[in-house]
Amino acid sequence: MKKRKTPGIVPAWISSLKKILPGITTTEPAQLHEHGGDAWMAHALPQAVVTARNAADVQKLMRFCSKHRIPVTPRGSGRGYVGGCVPVQGGVSLSLKKMNRILEISKEDSLAVVQPGVITGEIQSRVRSQGLYYPPDPASAEESSIGGNIATNAGGPRCLKYGVTRNYVMGLQVVLADGELVHVGGRTQKNKLGFNLTDLFLGSEGMLGIVTQATLRLIPHPPARALIVASFAKPTQAAAAVQKILGSGFLPCALEIADAFTLAAARKYTRNVPPGEALLMVEIDGQPESIRSELRKIIQLLKELSSLSIQSSYKPEGIEKLWAVRKAFSYSLRATGLTKLNEDVVVPRGKLLSLFAFSKTLQKKYGIQVASFGHAGDGNIHVNLMVPPEEAASPNTSAALNALFRQVLDWGGTITGEHGVGLAKKPWWIAATTPGLRSLHKTVKKALDPLGLLNPGKFLE
Amino acid sequence: MKKRKTPGIVPAWISSLKKILPGITTTEPAQLHEHGGDAWMAHALPQAVVTARNAADVQKLMRFCSKHRIPVTPRGSGRGYVGGCVPVQGGVSLSLKKMNRILEISKEDSLAVVQPGVITGEIQSRVRSQGLYYPPDPASAEESSIGGNIATNAGGPRCLKYGVTRNYVMGLQVVLADGELVHVGGRTQKNKLGFNLTDLFLGSEGMLGIVTQATLRLIPHPPARALIVASFAKPTQAAAAVQKILGSGFLPCALEIADAFTLAAARKYTRNVPPGEALLMVEIDGQPESIRSELRKIIQLLKELSSLSIQSSYKPEGIEKLWAVRKAFSYSLRATGLTKLNEDVVVPRGKLLSLFAFSKTLQKKYGIQVASFGHAGDGNIHVNLMVPPEEAASPNTSAALNALFRQVLDWGGTITGEHGVGLAKKPWWIAATTPGLRSLHKTVKKALDPLGLLNPGKFLE
Repeated sequence: MKKRKTPGIVPAWISSLKKILPGITTTEPAQLHEHGGDAWMAHALPQAVVTARNAADVQKLMRFCSKHRIPVTPRGSGRGYVGGCVPVQGGVSLSLKKMNRILEISKEDSLAVVQPGVITGEIQSRVRSQGLYYPPDPASAEESSIGGNIATNAGGPRCLKYGVTRNYVMGLQVVLADGELVHVGGRTQKNKLGFNLTDLFLGSEGMLGIVTQATLRLIPHPPARALIVASFAKPTQAAAAVQKILGSGFLPCALEIADAFTLAAARKYTRNVPPGEALLMVEIDGQPESIRSELRKIIQLLKELSSLSIQSSYKPEGIEKLWAVRKAFSYSLRATGLTKLNEDVVVPRGKLLSLFAFSKTLQKKYGIQVASFGHAGDGNIHVNLMVPPEEAASPNTSAALNALFRQVLDWGGTITGEHGVGLAKKPWWIAATTPGLRSLHKTVKKALDPLGLLNPGKFLE
Repeated sequence: MKKRKTPGIVPAWISSLKKILPGITTTEPAQLHEHGGDAWMAHALPQAVVTARNAADVQKLMRFCSKHRIPVTPRGSGRGYVGGCVPVQGGVSLSLKKMNRILEISKEDSLAVVQPGVITGEIQSRVRSQGLYYPPDPASAEESSIGGNIATNAGGPRCLKYGVTRNYVMGLQVVLADGELVHVGGRTQKNKLGFNLTDLFLGSEGMLGIVTQATLRLIPHPPARALIVASFAKPTQAAAAVQKILGSGFLPCALEIADAFTLAAARKYTRNVPPGEALLMVEIDGQPESIRSELRKIIQLLKELSSLSIQSSYKPEGIEKLWAVRKAFSYSLRATGLTKLNEDVVVPRGKLLSLFAFSKTLQKKYGIQVASFGHAGDGNIHVNLMVPPEEAASPNTSAALNALFRQVLDWGGTITGEHGVGLAKKPWWIAATTPGLRSLHKTVKKALDPLGLLNPGKFLE
């Protein structure tokens, strides 16, 4: 996946580009290196980095690159998990991180207008101070930009009740491959004007257009919240609790599950990890009185399901303390010294238990330890293959991943729920799609980016 | 908009089509007439009607029509409000109403697989019996089919909390213009595989493909519900109540508002209509104890806002009785003897009051009575111009509609929130879009339907 450039040889187009976009175009080696990858392992150097200040810069760049047929790979804060912004065909790495202003927060219209480089966590806290709520909450919220969230249609633990990023994007300003600027959607909570083009750009991984502004739908911030952490002797019990809670008409904002390996690693890394081989976290939100009575009911229900331990809180500090265990999972798995291959598969919810069982057989068959945790309510489980660093791309690891994805697909699941395809999932794109679906993707891609300049080398090639 | 055929002259292709799809292809005049329109005023005769039994029929039809370049206009139960399924260029009217089976309801996966001709209300009641909930709830739910709901991305009163149809469609089986059958999306609550093509077909008004099967996301049915009906002396007070309720962190499932004209008509038509010049209906749902405490709180809040009257209930029969007033609005407006031009405009929520005020000025300026009611929480208000039947298409009526749409667009609103563009809103398509947006629509349309056979003559032409 690496593309090496001969040092010292600078293509002729770069000096033209520097004239067209002076001060924001660089070929400085450290900059090229910094813009060659994300949080995944793949890396490839762009030939130039352009750091846009506004949509006009992006338009100029795309007009130039269309004319000269130069690939452009857009990127936000570079915190993706699948190598989605690795410029595998060189060309220009387009950074949007300096377009990082919140342009408007309107309480009466219940919306925010933001540039793509704004860190998602900043949006959450800024709107919070006006009593508003932006629910999508990817684990990377403090580091990832809203543009990247839009490119991958990011999720997080709160999707069960509130839905993913697309449910909160009402309008987009997009620069197309030929440099045209277009507004899709708008400032209204509902919109049935023409085709659903806003949603077409949502999750398109920078391959259909470049988002230069987004209008986000906000909702009233729920005044209260409560969290319950229950542990169980067996994963079957935790999975049964998931179905029981939902079957009783509760729609928690988060419903997180973790397996024995994850818990064991967490116990070595941090304190306050409950006993047992499975953990369930249930977060509810709403009006204070409602939350208190629902908290009691859910605790009662969990007791009847023979949980080993139950902790709960409806105070902000207490909730933070309990969430700390969940937040430590990734760090504790990394602290094992093993490389964590985080696969965000999704299965139909009824297959949750089967997925946990299958992870165990993977472990036996391939001699690879597997740590699973994630969004039980969505069936979106992060199955982490824990391998020695030198084994990350070995045939055995590939075989184990193959087996995992094949099984997930056989169950009617999908190979990625929120990270995107990028380069990490590209090897399984064919297995996950029919020829008809691939052909439809290519039709849409060719219509919007006929020269194939936007983020090339990814899943369609 | 009418296209008349010379009686007795049957094009040669029809006999070929009858051979290919025997028994389901008809040219019987009463059938042609029946398939020439929907609930709006426009009507045009197709040359043949095909009533598909399965996706294979649709594929055969599209292969044939692609070869012979014959227009195909798909339709569900024909309850649309904008003439979306009027076959303005003749050709084939493709009815999907016989594809009306619920193929699967899975409680453990929390989904339903349905054919497009199933009536939406039937889906709601069938899944309800398993403790599941399909929230989208268009007023036409007892008559309209899920395929039509998907084609228009239908909404209804419960969108504020639960979102529109697209939020509940996880996967689609679609026949493309050339007869190819493709599955987009799937059976998972989250899916980031490739582009967001499921959403592209959502709301595409039969112009990009023909939906032959849908996989619907269901959620736990909330065990309790409560409804509050408050009346006010002035619309300003009702609008202030909307902002107050949302500002207090409540997210009601429905938040409906009605104006003085609507209430006056309702008083002539039915009983139990509260006093005052504005009505607000607030529906909340969730756990029983939560609902009871929230009901008390909202009532308290409405009392502080000097409501004239407050009625409420948390019992199913009581709720039905209170909703009956809202459901009578359309009938009572029709009972005035005037033609009701129902425009489902949406304004940014902060412009709600301005919209009510503007309706009054419309009334004065054009001498047309205006009845406004609808989904206050979404800013999606049904502005009904009440005109004598012979005035429905008069220059004065057109001028009033022009003024309405121009104002809505100036506020950053949209001309349709849930009905679609169809023929009814087609005259304002240009005013509502930029050249760039129209060009992008045409690019997408041309890619998916290069011969322009699917539902031609609508907003792109």
